[in-house]
Amino acid sequence: MGKSAIGSVGEVQAQRMRFDDELALRGGGRIAGYELAYETYGELNAARDNAVLVCHALNASHHVAGTYANDPENVGWWDNLIGPGKPVDTERFFVVGVNNLGSCFGSTGPGSINPATGEPYGPDFPVVTVEDWVHSQALLADRLGIERFAAVIGGSLGGMQALAWSYLYPRRIANAVVIATAPRLSAQNIAFDEVARRAIITDPDFHGGHFYRHGVVPRRGLQVARMIGHITYLSDDAMAEKFGRTMRSEKYSFSFDVDFEIESYLRYQGEKFSSYFDANTYLLITRALDYFDPARDHGGSLQQALAPAQADFLVASFTTDWRFAPQRSREIVEALVANHCNVTYAAIDAPHGHDAFLLDDEQYHALLGAYFERIAARLGGQL
Amino acid sequence: MGKSAIGSVGEVQAQRMRFDDELALRGGGRIAGYELAYETYGELNAARDNAVLVCHALNASHHVAGTYANDPENVGWWDNLIGPGKPVDTERFFVVGVNNLGSCFGSTGPGSINPATGEPYGPDFPVVTVEDWVHSQALLADRLGIERFAAVIGGSLGGMQALAWSYLYPRRIANAVVIATAPRLSAQNIAFDEVARRAIITDPDFHGGHFYRHGVVPRRGLQVARMIGHITYLSDDAMAEKFGRTMRSEKYSFSFDVDFEIESYLRYQGEKFSSYFDANTYLLITRALDYFDPARDHGGSLQQALAPAQADFLVASFTTDWRFAPQRSREIVEALVANHCNVTYAAIDAPHGHDAFLLDDEQYHALLGAYFERIAARLGGQL
Repeated sequence: MGKSAIGSVGEVQAQRMRFDDELALRGGGRIAGYELAYETYGELNAARDNAVLVCHALNASHHVAGTYANDPENVGWWDNLIGPGKPVDTERFFVVGVNNLGSCFGSTGPGSINPATGEPYGPDFPVVTVEDWVHSQALLADRLGIERFAAVIGGSLGGMQALAWSYLYPRRIANAVVIATAPRLSAQNIAFDEVARRAIITDPDFHGGHFYRHGVVPRRGLQVARMIGHITYLSDDAMAEKFGRTMRSEKYSFSFDVDFEIESYLRYQGEKFSSYFDANTYLLITRALDYFDPARDHGGSLQQALAPAQADFLVASFTTDWRFAPQRSREIVEALVANHCNVTYAAIDAPHGHDAFLLDDEQYHALLGAYFERIAARLGGQL
Repeated sequence: MGKSAIGSVGEVQAQRMRFDDELALRGGGRIAGYELAYETYGELNAARDNAVLVCHALNASHHVAGTYANDPENVGWWDNLIGPGKPVDTERFFVVGVNNLGSCFGSTGPGSINPATGEPYGPDFPVVTVEDWVHSQALLADRLGIERFAAVIGGSLGGMQALAWSYLYPRRIANAVVIATAPRLSAQNIAFDEVARRAIITDPDFHGGHFYRHGVVPRRGLQVARMIGHITYLSDDAMAEKFGRTMRSEKYSFSFDVDFEIESYLRYQGEKFSSYFDANTYLLITRALDYFDPARDHGGSLQQALAPAQADFLVASFTTDWRFAPQRSREIVEALVANHCNVTYAAIDAPHGHDAFLLDDEQYHALLGAYFERIAARLGGQL
């Protein structure tokens, strides 16, 4: 049995849905003949009103909960939240995880074969945006027979998608659960993304994004990008608590080898990441983050951008998250309140920084559990 | 006339001092036949008690104030602070700027010829520490006939040197002016240093530190390192104010080119830096930062580490500095107060983040001016 035995959805299978109709993208590009990888847990009820869409952040996927028969250690990234008896209870909800277009875990992305050339898309894969992802998710929902989601939930970049659902498809979402996110990146956020991209693009093994045909991977750039990311996911305090100045041996090496545990941790995370993540996907996803700015088409007014939203909202942030600080969530809340939406907002006192949205902090999970309990109580059809 | 005409020390000349005696380094290495580049402004008075040593941070040098005859645009990095009538008044003080051992602006460093091989030292240049720099600065002071400095002043890494002077040479320093620094790096601080080092070391043009013999420079790594640095020098708010989401053109490019001003700024800073800064020096200096931890040899007690100090202290921090937050300065202040030292502490409300220590914030300069005024009033000899 895998790690997720208790309250787990158990063994799951990834599925793929193929879309032959062209998808027009916000950036002007088009993509046809694409596939979306997804997973579902639980059952869609007769009223078809108990579906929950889970949107992922930078390096996650459709594998949200459970394990695979042939890979029992590969536990879904939000398994602590989703499963029978868990805050998002798969005995009551039909949960859908989807891998975003442009990603590298099964959905069509830069590493997929471009039918026009017979080679991987590479840098020719079009720049995709949060809104494009939401449109493609809506098409998947059509195929799955889901007219309206009981909830769309996501953290970080996933939270941006949940928010975008609320104004792009106001009739198709009953609740938006928007966690640890921002209505748009700050200059500092963009700066971190840009440094990560420069590290990748300037890696000689990147080959302008055509590294596939050279049989190499820009590992150095990916490592540095991931190390930068990790620093921003953890709070200063959490890092101090977890690593501090703890050393690997008693004495300084007086070299540039690993002396401190934090160095070892970051190198390990960077190396692991570079072994599985696609460099072009990293560029695409950070750019989607940079470009997300719903207020931009409304003279800078977030309130106006969110005006179409009819859903109820749960907005949550974490006190030690400096990547998307509570203040950024409050900007969303203020716009929603000004629009007379039903909003529950929680600033959760958690020490883990941005990463907290993935952890099973008691207060956080109690909040989500109560919120989904309320959603479940309102469902029309019973299983 | 150069930019620094008003209240400027005017045209200055860099000098070099050669040391033939071996310097034993904390890491066990030794270096002989080294040179220190330095500049002086003002005159040493008859009592030889009006000398002020300026210690530099990561990428600065001995060129602290004034301009060069052949390079009038090259204004010293702390010219706004130091000059006739300025807070550190060169009509009253004899100011010494020194380039640290291992740097790349004139003092012996990795780019210098190793007499043992006839080639640049490169990676064979020994790892130097804050304490090593202080010892070498003391040797320079001997040569300049300075028994005791009226003050040693520095910000950031320079502040660490000023602090180290106070306990390594308690009889040779009357005042330590310790700005925007920390008694040791946090895990997050080390993490940023480590990412920067990885970017440099993994650049194929680094050649294990022997890039000189290949006629190349690891520009890509240096660029990324500098971009990371810049993010940590500016506050989130300062970056928001200076750049926000301001774009270079009206529309998104839907590419990975420069869309936002902050991207342009960082790329420019990175490229400029990589054109003049030595990659091995970058490694050495970040390691000196990582290793600085006076409490380490005293069971973790900063108070004990600072016990020898007899100087008076001015400790200053900036409210928006998240690289070395005010709390880190307070750790120093608390240890000094517990040791019954004379300490003035100021947490200056400035929006510019860590960079504030280089800027001419009115409150900040008024504070330094008043402090140096008090020092001047106590000097024994008059010019």
